[in-house]
Amino acid sequence: MKVIRHLRNSAFLTCAILIILTQTTCTGEFTESTGTTSSSDSPNVKYVFYFIGDGMSTVQIHATEMYLASLADGYSDSNINIEKTKNLSFRDFPAFGMATTYAANRFITDSAAAGTALACGKKTLCETVSLSTDRKTPYTTIAELAKAKGMKVGLVTSQGIDHATPAVFYAHEENRYNYYNIGVQLANSNFDYFAGGSLHEPARRATRVRRGAAAGESVESKNTYDVAKENGFKIVTSREELDNCKPGERIIAYNKAEESKNALNFEIDRPDNCMSLAEFTAKGIALLDNDKGFFMMVEGGQIDTACHNNDAVASIYDTIAFDKAIKEAIDFYKQHPKETLIVITADHETGGMSIGYGTSYDTAFELLKNQKMSWDKFVNTVLSKYSSGQWNGVEDNIPDGLKADFNEAFGLVYDRLNPYEKDLLENAYDKHMSNTKRMRMTINEFRQQDQLLYGDKNPVGITLTRILNSRAGIGWPTVAHTGTPVEVHAIGVDCESFTGFYDNTDVPKKMAKIMGVNLDN
Amino acid sequence: MKVIRHLRNSAFLTCAILIILTQTTCTGEFTESTGTTSSSDSPNVKYVFYFIGDGMSTVQIHATEMYLASLADGYSDSNINIEKTKNLSFRDFPAFGMATTYAANRFITDSAAAGTALACGKKTLCETVSLSTDRKTPYTTIAELAKAKGMKVGLVTSQGIDHATPAVFYAHEENRYNYYNIGVQLANSNFDYFAGGSLHEPARRATRVRRGAAAGESVESKNTYDVAKENGFKIVTSREELDNCKPGERIIAYNKAEESKNALNFEIDRPDNCMSLAEFTAKGIALLDNDKGFFMMVEGGQIDTACHNNDAVASIYDTIAFDKAIKEAIDFYKQHPKETLIVITADHETGGMSIGYGTSYDTAFELLKNQKMSWDKFVNTVLSKYSSGQWNGVEDNIPDGLKADFNEAFGLVYDRLNPYEKDLLENAYDKHMSNTKRMRMTINEFRQQDQLLYGDKNPVGITLTRILNSRAGIGWPTVAHTGTPVEVHAIGVDCESFTGFYDNTDVPKKMAKIMGVNLDN
Repeated sequence: MKVIRHLRNSAFLTCAILIILTQTTCTGEFTESTGTTSSSDSPNVKYVFYFIGDGMSTVQIHATEMYLASLADGYSDSNINIEKTKNLSFRDFPAFGMATTYAANRFITDSAAAGTALACGKKTLCETVSLSTDRKTPYTTIAELAKAKGMKVGLVTSQGIDHATPAVFYAHEENRYNYYNIGVQLANSNFDYFAGGSLHEPARRATRVRRGAAAGESVESKNTYDVAKENGFKIVTSREELDNCKPGERIIAYNKAEESKNALNFEIDRPDNCMSLAEFTAKGIALLDNDKGFFMMVEGGQIDTACHNNDAVASIYDTIAFDKAIKEAIDFYKQHPKETLIVITADHETGGMSIGYGTSYDTAFELLKNQKMSWDKFVNTVLSKYSSGQWNGVEDNIPDGLKADFNEAFGLVYDRLNPYEKDLLENAYDKHMSNTKRMRMTINEFRQQDQLLYGDKNPVGITLTRILNSRAGIGWPTVAHTGTPVEVHAIGVDCESFTGFYDNTDVPKKMAKIMGVNLDN
Repeated sequence: MKVIRHLRNSAFLTCAILIILTQTTCTGEFTESTGTTSSSDSPNVKYVFYFIGDGMSTVQIHATEMYLASLADGYSDSNINIEKTKNLSFRDFPAFGMATTYAANRFITDSAAAGTALACGKKTLCETVSLSTDRKTPYTTIAELAKAKGMKVGLVTSQGIDHATPAVFYAHEENRYNYYNIGVQLANSNFDYFAGGSLHEPARRATRVRRGAAAGESVESKNTYDVAKENGFKIVTSREELDNCKPGERIIAYNKAEESKNALNFEIDRPDNCMSLAEFTAKGIALLDNDKGFFMMVEGGQIDTACHNNDAVASIYDTIAFDKAIKEAIDFYKQHPKETLIVITADHETGGMSIGYGTSYDTAFELLKNQKMSWDKFVNTVLSKYSSGQWNGVEDNIPDGLKADFNEAFGLVYDRLNPYEKDLLENAYDKHMSNTKRMRMTINEFRQQDQLLYGDKNPVGITLTRILNSRAGIGWPTVAHTGTPVEVHAIGVDCESFTGFYDNTDVPKKMAKIMGVNLDN
């Protein structure tokens, strides 16, 4: 065993050395070796894009490609145009790799520990934001190093700008849900551009149970947006306001209409008056471009939420939205091919999404285009109309109007469902009405079954997309994250180093080497 | 969109050209360019190993690594030694890629269409063995080309040697289940070594419904083993007999004790008197080695069967068995590093296996080591003892003896199961007894639920492993194949060409280029 491992290591090392000796850029220019230490700067790297698809692994990517292919005329499971399934902008990037994702204290990671690994090149505990595993010592982040080097820094996300994935680049906090503290660190950071969902807790909540805070503890603190303004940030909340911003201004941007959500709408539900991830990215590029270059992280944060909901179409739309943001970076790369590096990866997979379900070998992705909104929006805007009556003591049957709504929103014709699917939906509706009217009358021993059936989500909502998804050939074994490794795609300066199979902590280390900054502190 | 695609293509091409210009071997020797046409031979490739893990994609590999890590002292979900999770022999191979798997007529492929793609570099219909999509024109296989070039050829598998994955390398047949026809082609082939499970249909069954055959058609035909012997093959059916074989002899080898199974036992169930996949591989290497080199395909065929059964531990044991076979090739590679190429991939994923289940972020892989046999063996050797009574008209309760057997074989203590798990098992037991005694009294409208619950498998068997797997943190959304891309790992001569993301048809094309043979005919 030892001999084999030794052999593997030497073969690997030899190859690694040769790759270094013959290193090229993916932009067409042969360069000198970039060396192997973090101090060896690649002189050409001026613009660095770091795209993180939250919850997006191989199947999320592949399902999106399948969905896009299914929109073509004549598509069917038996008539797939293979070339048409390669339709995400990064699919043919010259460098491809995969990365493991585990946290220091759990195999299945969360966005804070995974984000810390991707931002700092070091493992930490779940829920921890760029601190060491004793939750005391700050880890240096690659964004901080970029800033220290003179680059401008922008963070864009479809989650709140204080959510775990953006937070790990600027904050150091023992718990990701300490939103007020994280917001204060954002407001005090020297970064240049934050765009996405609004802050979760701009004013510290007077009464809040926090880790380490006594129940009922009351604290008054300054509004984070005010702190940000004092520090020179401009807060903009509409497309028009953002359009009027000029390079050199430091900006915090979100959509006013989404302020109460602390996140962008799912892309499938996005109103026209709300800026998209791609718009925030494009504007960020325009604002950040300068002689010393920039570092920009863009998170496709709602892919994860959609997968937690087992809502494949919402996930697919958000993956497409993420890809549109990537296309903005590619457009920029076209103008600066010898100075730009684009890296695309994910923090973890969510949902265990599979293309293939039950006992069938068939898929029917064309059914997915019948879905018109996320189930989250359906529950809040359609189902909610049916939840206001008084419980009459018997099981509720699904009203005809609601059945029509299922068809309208998801293309599910109730009368054409099979008995098992009808049973699932009737049970879910009854459960939903129980939750609404009977509140917590769940019998304990059915609790686990309910969890498996509904994963603590709205029973009707998650059942609707699971039925539609299973008919299309998509399965969801979990509503949580999984331990599946994630893909890495790269193009641009010295991108070859992102080929292979490695750990998520290696991603920023590779990036740091190319940028000539030192993450080891 | 077009502009971006053009950009991507040019960037990709530029990079591809540069890679060719700077091509190296992974064995440490810088070589001339191997060029881009199939006629450009790499002079150093003498030994080619092609490992195909049937049903083995990222999660099967990763779960096996996790399982091996979980055997270490002090292992827990919160105390994972990351380095110990990199414990399969190919994890650090210098070349890593992924390949899409779809068939010509279905997104989710089968082993025949996927095998044809891996053997011939061309897509075909599901169930078709190395024929064109009209099921008429034979596709040339890379093994045939290797043989024509003067290399010896060996095919090793844990499935029957006439099963789809080995068959695609030597047979051309419109349906993979035409076992007699495939066996005849095996017997008439000019290959040198076949080892694994026995032939499914060495004597054509007198009455057999085949695709294209009239019902009740009766055909008498020569025994395939006799044809093979006439053609110079020696048939060996024990370890001792195989040990006595000499280089130069043409061999068909299987374990006598497994003759009725037409496959190797699951590794977890393998009796000592049965040769393993690694033994068949090691002996094959010894027998095939010669001045003109060899081509050897080794299939980890029972990984797929285990995943169809949603039996994670059986899958893991067979992945370890597959890895042991790979280690034999690595040992050989150590002696011939400049003349050997090892490529490891899969035909498709099976089961949609996920590390992560239900609503939990926790895993408990240490529970898996309590499983002592596959559920298939459990059903046939333990549960079968409880199936002989007469149905008494009421629901069956699980006998205490059987509950003790659950603990013995799977480490599942019945009394410690939660109510939901108990309910699952009681229902499965009742279903099993119904099948045994009441035969086909299933109410139609529960048919789909039964399929989802049991996937046409033994209800008790699949429920036992699903409960154990879910407790360990493993989910299975399907008992069928999925459309997930598969990993590719390579080491040895010109292995760099296997980096990246591509289609399964590209795998043998890359191999053919390195071997200097032409797959385009």
